[in-house]
Amino acid sequence: MAAWLTALERLARSRAKAGLTRELRPRPADDDVVDLAGNDYLGLARHPEVVAAAATALSAYGLGATGSRLVRGSTEAHAELESDLAGWLGAEQALVYSSGYLANLGAVRALADKHTLVVSDAYNHASLIDGCKMSGAETVVAPHGDSAAVAAVLDAAPGRPALVVTESVFSVDGDLAPLAALHEVTSARGALLLVDDAHALGVLGPQGAGGVAAAGLSGAPDVVVTATLSKSLGGAGGLIAGPRQIVRHLVDTGRTFIYDTALPPAVAAGAHAALRIAREAGDRRALLAARAEQTVRRLGAAGFAVRRPAGAVLSVTAPGPEAALAWAADCRDRGIAVGCFRPPSTPDGSSRLRLTLSAGVSDVDFARALDVIVECAP
Amino acid sequence: MAAWLTALERLARSRAKAGLTRELRPRPADDDVVDLAGNDYLGLARHPEVVAAAATALSAYGLGATGSRLVRGSTEAHAELESDLAGWLGAEQALVYSSGYLANLGAVRALADKHTLVVSDAYNHASLIDGCKMSGAETVVAPHGDSAAVAAVLDAAPGRPALVVTESVFSVDGDLAPLAALHEVTSARGALLLVDDAHALGVLGPQGAGGVAAAGLSGAPDVVVTATLSKSLGGAGGLIAGPRQIVRHLVDTGRTFIYDTALPPAVAAGAHAALRIAREAGDRRALLAARAEQTVRRLGAAGFAVRRPAGAVLSVTAPGPEAALAWAADCRDRGIAVGCFRPPSTPDGSSRLRLTLSAGVSDVDFARALDVIVECAP
Ligand SMILES: Cc1ncc(COP(=O)(O)O)c(C=O)c1O
Ligand SMILES: Cc1ncc(COP(=O)(O)O)c(C=O)c1O
Repeated sequence: MAAWLTALERLARSRAKAGLTRELRPRPADDDVVDLAGNDYLGLARHPEVVAAAATALSAYGLGATGSRLVRGSTEAHAELESDLAGWLGAEQALVYSSGYLANLGAVRALADKHTLVVSDAYNHASLIDGCKMSGAETVVAPHGDSAAVAAVLDAAPGRPALVVTESVFSVDGDLAPLAALHEVTSARGALLLVDDAHALGVLGPQGAGGVAAAGLSGAPDVVVTATLSKSLGGAGGLIAGPRQIVRHLVDTGRTFIYDTALPPAVAAGAHAALRIAREAGDRRALLAARAEQTVRRLGAAGFAVRRPAGAVLSVTAPGPEAALAWAADCRDRGIAVGCFRPPSTPDGSSRLRLTLSAGVSDVDFARALDVIVECAP
Repeated sequence: MAAWLTALERLARSRAKAGLTRELRPRPADDDVVDLAGNDYLGLARHPEVVAAAATALSAYGLGATGSRLVRGSTEAHAELESDLAGWLGAEQALVYSSGYLANLGAVRALADKHTLVVSDAYNHASLIDGCKMSGAETVVAPHGDSAAVAAVLDAAPGRPALVVTESVFSVDGDLAPLAALHEVTSARGALLLVDDAHALGVLGPQGAGGVAAAGLSGAPDVVVTATLSKSLGGAGGLIAGPRQIVRHLVDTGRTFIYDTALPPAVAAGAHAALRIAREAGDRRALLAARAEQTVRRLGAAGFAVRRPAGAVLSVTAPGPEAALAWAADCRDRGIAVGCFRPPSTPDGSSRLRLTLSAGVSDVDFARALDVIVECAP
C-alpha cells in the first residue's frame, strides 16, 4: 500500500483508540426518529409552503443555477430573497452565498487583511476560524464571551484597523455573546464587529430577526452580520448583511462569492418562503422558549447542570468521548436523535450531548425525548 | 460616514475606473437567452428526469438536510449518490460536499500540511489556491501546464512529502492539463496528485467519467479527484473521490465537511439522476465535440485565434476589460449570454469572452449565437 495511505490508516487507528471515529448514518426519508439533533429550529424544512415554493421554482428554473452569481447564477429567486433578508435584518443590503461556511470565509476576508488586528472569540465556528486564517491577519483569540478581554486587546494596539469576530448564539453550548457590550467596545475604538447569527436567526429578536436585532444593533454602520439559510429557515445557503458598500465590495472582489456556483434557485425560493413564515412565527418562538425551560427543569431534576439556553441549542457534558457516543447511541436506539460532540468539534476539548429544540417536534414526542435522554445517561 | 465605508467607496471608484465593476443581473425563469455562459454542459439542469428526481426527494425529505453530514444531514439520497459517483469515477469511495469550493478546500487541506511541498498550476481555480493557503504548506506556483517544471520543483526537494495540484480542463481557457505526464512525474517521486475535474466530468473520458479517467488514472492509489455537481450534472455540490482511507480521514477530520450543513437531499437526488443520464450521454458528448470544431472554425474564419477546446469551454481574448464588457453586453442585447472574464478572474490578467458549449442549446440557436459573437466583436 502507498505510504501515505498507511499513514492515514495509522491516524485512523489512533482516532479509533481515542473514541474519535465518526460514522455517517444515512437516514431514510421516512425515519420516525424524534429529532433533537438537527438545526431546523422552527420546523420549516418540511413546511408545506416551503416545499411548494421550492417545487415551483424547481420546475420553473430547473435544478442548478448553472453558474456563478456573476455569470448565469443570479435569478429573480436570489434577488427577491436578498431584498427580503435585508429588510428582515434591518440591513442596507444582503448577499446570498451557497453556504454559511463560504459566507463566513468571505466576510472575514473582506473585513480583514494582513494589516488588520482580528480578535476572535475562543469558541468561534470553524468557518470563522478558517476565515481569520485565510485573511492573513494577525488573530488574537479572546477568552469566550469576554468583552473586557476584547477591549484590552484592542487597547493594546491603538489606531490599528481592527475586527472583532463572534457568533451570537454559540453553536455548541447555545450561550449568547455579550453583543451590546462588544459593540460598545468596538464602536468606541473604531473597530468593526462581525457577528455570525447562524443560530439566532429566526429564533431571537423582534420577528425572529436574530441576535443582532435583539441587541438593538440592526443597521449599525460598523456591524456586519452573517448567517445561514440552513438552520431556522430549513434550507441551505449563507448570507452576509450590512452596509451597501460591503456588498458592492464582495460582489466585485469576494473570492468565495465570485468563484462558486450560485445556490440552486429552488433552494433560494424555499428559503424565501421560510423567511416569510419565520417573521410571523411568534408562536413557534414561544414554544421554543417554553421547551428551553422544560429541558433545563427536566435535566436539572435528574442531576445535570444545564444552563438555560439563549436560543434553541444547549449541551450536556459527558464524562468522555466514548461515554458521549454510547449515550447518543442508546438514545438513537430508542428513537431519539441527539447530537454527540467530541473533539475537535467542541471548543474546550470536552465531550457532550448537544440538544436542539425544534418547533416541528410534538409536545408528546418532546417530553418522551427528555425522558429517554435522562434514562440513557451514563 | 464610517471611515471603513469611505475606504470601500474609494476602492469601488478605482475599480470602476479600471472597468472592473461587476453587476448582478438576476434572470427570470423564462428568459429565452441562448446560454453560452453557464456550465450546464450536458443540458441536464432542466432535464425532466433530473427535475422529477429532485421533486420526489423534495417532497419526501423536505427542503434542507437540517444538519451536518455527521449529525442529521446524511440521507439515503447522499449515500446512493456517493456510491454511484465512486463507481462512475472508478474510485474506491466518494464523498459529497455542499460545494466544489468547499470540497477543494477540504481536499488540499487533507493532503497537505505545513511540512508538505505543494506545487500548484499557475492557472488553478480560486478554491484550490485558497486550499493551498489554508493548508499552511509551502506552495510553489508552477508555470501553467508544464510537467517538466513540476518535476524540477520536486527534484529540488528530494524526500519531502509533496502534493501536485491541477485542474484537468482549466475553467477559463478550457485547455487540458498534461495529466498522464504529471502522474509520471508524481508517481516516480512518491508525490500525490490532486486533480480538480470540475470541467471535465460528464464531458471527457469513457462514459463521461472525466479527465482523470480519460488519462487512464482512475483508481490510482496516489491520485485524488475533486469535482462539482454544479456543472455537467446540472445541480450543486462538490465531491472528493479516492482511496477509502482519504474519505475516512475527511469524515473524521475535514473541517469543511464536518462543520457545514449537508447538501439538500433534493439536490443530491437530482444530481444522482443527472449522473445516470450523463453516463449514457455519448450523443451529447459527440454534439459538444462537434460544436467545439464549429466554434473554432467560425471564429477562426472571422479572424480570432481560438484554440480547440479540450472540453466544452473556451475563451476569446478581448483588447481590454471595457472592450470585453461591451462585447458581452452587445451579445446580451441580442439575446446571447456569454461570459466576460476580467481580472482578477483571469489567470494572466488579460480580459476575454468565455464561451461554454451546452448540449441543451439547439443547433439553430447555437449557429446564430456564433454569428452574433462575431458581429459584436470590438
Ligand atoms: C455558527 C455557525 N456558522 C456557520 C455555519 C456554517 O453554515 P452552513 O452549514 O450553511 O455552511 C454553521 C453550521 O453549519 C454554524 O453553526
Ligand atoms: C475548476 C473549478 N473548481 C471548483 C469550482 C467550484 O465549484 P462549485 O461552484 O461547486 O463551488 C469551480 C467553479 O465554480 C471550478 O470552475
